[in-house]
Amino acid sequence: MRALVLDGGFGFENLNIAERAKPEPGPGEVLVRIGAVSLNYRDLLLVEGSYNPRQQMPVVPTCDGAGIVDAVGPSVTRFAPGDRVVNGIAEGWIDGPPDALGLKTIRGGPGGDGFCADYVLVPERALFAVPDHLSLAEAATLPCAGITAWCAVVEHGNLRPGGTVVVEGTGGVALFATQFARIAGARTMVLSSSNEKLDRISEIGVDATANYVEVPEWSRAVRERLDADGADLVIELGGAATLENAMRSVKPGGTVALIGNLSGSHAPLNLPLAVMRQVRLQGVTCGSLGDMARMMAAVATHRIKPWVHEIFPLDRYRDAFELMRAGGHVGKIVIALDSGG
Amino acid sequence: MRALVLDGGFGFENLNIAERAKPEPGPGEVLVRIGAVSLNYRDLLLVEGSYNPRQQMPVVPTCDGAGIVDAVGPSVTRFAPGDRVVNGIAEGWIDGPPDALGLKTIRGGPGGDGFCADYVLVPERALFAVPDHLSLAEAATLPCAGITAWCAVVEHGNLRPGGTVVVEGTGGVALFATQFARIAGARTMVLSSSNEKLDRISEIGVDATANYVEVPEWSRAVRERLDADGADLVIELGGAATLENAMRSVKPGGTVALIGNLSGSHAPLNLPLAVMRQVRLQGVTCGSLGDMARMMAAVATHRIKPWVHEIFPLDRYRDAFELMRAGGHVGKIVIALDSGG
Amino acid sequence: MRALVLDGGFGFENLNIAERAKPEPGPGEVLVRIGAVSLNYRDLLLVEGSYNPRQQMPVVPTCDGAGIVDAVGPSVTRFAPGDRVVNGIAEGWIDGPPDALGLKTIRGGPGGDGFCADYVLVPERALFAVPDHLSLAEAATLPCAGITAWCAVVEHGNLRPGGTVVVEGTGGVALFATQFARIAGARTMVLSSSNEKLDRISEIGVDATANYVEVPEWSRAVRERLDADGADLVIELGGAATLENAMRSVKPGGTVALIGNLSGSHAPLNLPLAVMRQVRLQGVTCGSLGDMARMMAAVATHRIKPWVHEIFPLDRYRDAFELMRAGGHVGKIVIALDSGG
Amino acid sequence: MRALVLDGGFGFENLNIAERAKPEPGPGEVLVRIGAVSLNYRDLLLVEGSYNPRQQMPVVPTCDGAGIVDAVGPSVTRFAPGDRVVNGIAEGWIDGPPDALGLKTIRGGPGGDGFCADYVLVPERALFAVPDHLSLAEAATLPCAGITAWCAVVEHGNLRPGGTVVVEGTGGVALFATQFARIAGARTMVLSSSNEKLDRISEIGVDATANYVEVPEWSRAVRERLDADGADLVIELGGAATLENAMRSVKPGGTVALIGNLSGSHAPLNLPLAVMRQVRLQGVTCGSLGDMARMMAAVATHRIKPWVHEIFPLDRYRDAFELMRAGGHVGKIVIALDSGG
Ligand SMILES: [Zn+2]
Ligand SMILES: [Zn+2]
Ligand SMILES: [Zn+2]
Ligand SMILES: [Zn+2]
Repeated sequence: MRALVLDGGFGFENLNIAERAKPEPGPGEVLVRIGAVSLNYRDLLLVEGSYNPRQQMPVVPTCDGAGIVDAVGPSVTRFAPGDRVVNGIAEGWIDGPPDALGLKTIRGGPGGDGFCADYVLVPERALFAVPDHLSLAEAATLPCAGITAWCAVVEHGNLRPGGTVVVEGTGGVALFATQFARIAGARTMVLSSSNEKLDRISEIGVDATANYVEVPEWSRAVRERLDADGADLVIELGGAATLENAMRSVKPGGTVALIGNLSGSHAPLNLPLAVMRQVRLQGVTCGSLGDMARMMAAVATHRIKPWVHEIFPLDRYRDAFELMRAGGHVGKIVIALDSGG
Repeated sequence: MRALVLDGGFGFENLNIAERAKPEPGPGEVLVRIGAVSLNYRDLLLVEGSYNPRQQMPVVPTCDGAGIVDAVGPSVTRFAPGDRVVNGIAEGWIDGPPDALGLKTIRGGPGGDGFCADYVLVPERALFAVPDHLSLAEAATLPCAGITAWCAVVEHGNLRPGGTVVVEGTGGVALFATQFARIAGARTMVLSSSNEKLDRISEIGVDATANYVEVPEWSRAVRERLDADGADLVIELGGAATLENAMRSVKPGGTVALIGNLSGSHAPLNLPLAVMRQVRLQGVTCGSLGDMARMMAAVATHRIKPWVHEIFPLDRYRDAFELMRAGGHVGKIVIALDSGG
Repeated sequence: MRALVLDGGFGFENLNIAERAKPEPGPGEVLVRIGAVSLNYRDLLLVEGSYNPRQQMPVVPTCDGAGIVDAVGPSVTRFAPGDRVVNGIAEGWIDGPPDALGLKTIRGGPGGDGFCADYVLVPERALFAVPDHLSLAEAATLPCAGITAWCAVVEHGNLRPGGTVVVEGTGGVALFATQFARIAGARTMVLSSSNEKLDRISEIGVDATANYVEVPEWSRAVRERLDADGADLVIELGGAATLENAMRSVKPGGTVALIGNLSGSHAPLNLPLAVMRQVRLQGVTCGSLGDMARMMAAVATHRIKPWVHEIFPLDRYRDAFELMRAGGHVGKIVIALDSGG
Repeated sequence: MRALVLDGGFGFENLNIAERAKPEPGPGEVLVRIGAVSLNYRDLLLVEGSYNPRQQMPVVPTCDGAGIVDAVGPSVTRFAPGDRVVNGIAEGWIDGPPDALGLKTIRGGPGGDGFCADYVLVPERALFAVPDHLSLAEAATLPCAGITAWCAVVEHGNLRPGGTVVVEGTGGVALFATQFARIAGARTMVLSSSNEKLDRISEIGVDATANYVEVPEWSRAVRERLDADGADLVIELGGAATLENAMRSVKPGGTVALIGNLSGSHAPLNLPLAVMRQVRLQGVTCGSLGDMARMMAAVATHRIKPWVHEIFPLDRYRDAFELMRAGGHVGKIVIALDSGG
């Protein structure tokens, strides 16, 4: 079987398709024929060496994967060959608060080989059924970008119906956050540097928008267009450039979810503003298997459609990574491994 | 009656004792003969003009006061002349989440005249009985420094018995936070630049200490001396100089309570660290009247003794402010207004 | 002005329309020309003497009212004559956890005269703007039935999008609970003894139904038609007859919200079931002014339409009470006081 | 090796010591030489057939066990031979909310053979180090009685320092609840039918007591002796006889933790009381492995000493069960398996 493998050093010259032996499922394991993986920014950082300079190699990238059950090991009861499945991102973080050991089990990096291969072994408990309304390509976007948005909005957002959420950008996490905020009964405002992108995403149900290039002091636009008291939650994906506006956009006691920014930047934090306004800044990355189960129920109930920007066949993986680096996409970039994509 | 009044401009040359008419209580109001007020850093900033450059004048400083009920207005039922009472800091923030209007009712600044006067009118609902074990000077430290520490530790700390808390410094909020963490069943570690101060506070029950001048990378000391997994909570009072160590000191999903820093500084925020470790940074200032009621029950139950560094008579108010500015104190600075101090 | 007054004893023979002086607003007060009040079961119990046998008289019933601002007293800033307003039910329960004193401020009983009069004085903080999409008759159903449903579903329901809620009946609280569950992203199942009622309410977006006369063991129907794992929340309005089925309908750790049942019944509680399934049974009645503000935002955002069964003019108040007693209604019964109904 | 085995039918005539083969640890497993098991009321019910009439046999009873690591299987890293360990009760309930599958993994019943044997295999993740200050007999009381009390007080009690807790009885769960309430900063009141028992437990730090035989309306005693507003939490272990007094003892919005009562009784639930006072009744049984980890930290920090009433050698197991049935004990009954008891 094929696998995308980083070996011998960082950089794209060391990322190649290699031949590997097809594994066999042991007790509690499921062999999944992968149909699609999605790319996350961490994957680009991994290959470039800035995610973890001490990454062991060889390593297969990508932490997300969806496919079809090929075979099941002894004692597996929830799945059978032919079932469509998607992984939960941190196999060892079962449920409850963040778990230091569990966070090290994310595949495609700290937790070993990821999903960009024709067949992957996954523990039964880390797999979830793909709802009928989703393709495997769409499902593959859920384990990392979906669950991060879910945790930011639903677990940390302290939202009630009628609440308000500001989302920075139109990437994968941003669009999921907008969709989840909407099904939680909140009104949403999306920011982008591109009016064309803002037009394109209007179909997911956005209540207000702002172009942050045209309106650099966008915290005022939040009060004018979304919530005169300030928002309950800002999904902060922009880092140093946006943090202060994000903090100015929330009401007293509101939350700024810090996401992304997995590599080296520092942002200037306005301490008096944080204190006087009692802002909560919550770092969010990934979620537990319990979170994944709860999100999958919501995705099925509300027939949430992940926004896939483009699907690349495996042999065009370099183009997929290049597109991620260029950053012009809306939603998620997917690599299809077989016909399932 | 006497009142300390800032009038005609910022600066200590404009802060003087003036004569004012003794007020009379209206419906729902209580006239309190003030025995003591405590100083908070915001009071120094207020006088210097850096708390709010647009502060209306004349204004009486200080947001904390304890005294003896002198007279009660119509419909007051909870208090009678002779009762010892202390104020709740934000008269309009009754209970529940932070309330934009309520936060503007803090006296000695946004909410009008404060407590540094012989007699002050207070709405009944914003007064609380002083427990027997406390002097008025001790009680006067609770409304601002006490409630801020209470909210940081008890409301936002997400602590359970057996948890761990790191406290930066030996000022008023720091010592209250240490005391409240202890009665919540947590182990505590206190940081200071002075070994002598660390010695002096040992009596309040500290489980570990570090001198952050001797151990600049004190997040390691937290793991060695307090909690190998990292602390549940850091009471972050140091600002730019300490924020990164504070964030490195907590376990995944832990909380850094941001307190103090009411004037202009920015601190460099390590975004990847916040995200990967899922740190919660929670701005905290003051608390509601409901929080005050719950704190007063705990203070009475556990006979918590606020740490008063020095009590100044009213006519030495300049010395009191000078000591606050110099910063060498441990615990709180108090001004006594009559024999009640 | 007219007022509906219970005087001289319990029973409808003692409930009459009387003439009263029109009041004048004092500081912080608003004089509201009432357009509509809604009836709650507690009002029937009040008149019959089973709500509080020691009720002081004379008393004006009803705890809900909506109308138009007629005049405002000194210091009122949020409202002006002509504004359409509705009351928050417990004027003294501002926000935060239930407050013993606050719960005694519900009008039309413990807190004095209620809203069934041409003019009523209300403290400014206990009034809320009526959204444009609502008539005064519709708005008048929100303070008691609406807020109770809101607190049960949103504050106590521990719901996430994709969750599941079972609602017993088609009365005012039941329909609000169904509507609020829906905007919180949950799927809902409604129970009734009448297929015709189940048909009628389908427009508010119900995902499943059951006729509990036809299916007495309806907890199985919940698993078959709504959620194979059991529901997250049951809105339990039936009392002794339904409690055990409600508890059997929830998943481990699920919630049964106990509502209504304000008079004397005991229900047999299956203790081993509660323990083994870790059921949470939460008594709910009314909510704070903070809850009301949050609910009003959701009502406006989602253009929630309260379900008004019938509007009676004031002089037909006996018919309105008789309909409540007969129990055949769907949604709320309203009494209109002037043209505003 | 020896094992206590129920086989061929319910009743003590079918409970005997049998010889079994010593097991060997597989991957991720630890072989524990059991030093002590504790008895819980469920064990008595199990043997008598009233816990689960369809219990599969043969079965080894008891869900608690403490011992010494004898050998570890491949991939075990946290323990080594010689380590003192105790089990977490529900091996499949890792963390987070109650988990239907996880709750079926309690040993000594639904989850297969329990701990009353010379050697038992346990998955690594379900074992915890025994703190130095505890004997194995003491440690063996923690997995069921300890964790249930912990979850009731700490996870569901909604307590703050200065809060108040009423505990019914002097059994194992009751005494743990009292100890945990105390380290959480609460004041406690213990009820018993025996003044002698109340005297004996005074050393664990009880703030008030009542003999419920002498004071049948003990909810008044709660207000007189513990908290004039009513308690925050009642640990309700008495069932039908005590439920109403428990509900009358809490303040508005307070919690009644329903524990024990694993067999068939119904209690009359006063619905109007639950509704009007907004009581939360929370069924509690056991806890997750995450709860166990957090409890063990608290037990170690505060050097909590479980209260062991009597230790029986294995061959006197009938006497141990008889004592449990008779009910005269204070704290826990333990069976020692080898010298470790
Ligand atoms: Zn990820
Ligand atoms: Zn303050
Ligand atoms: Zn009501
Ligand atoms: Zn148990």
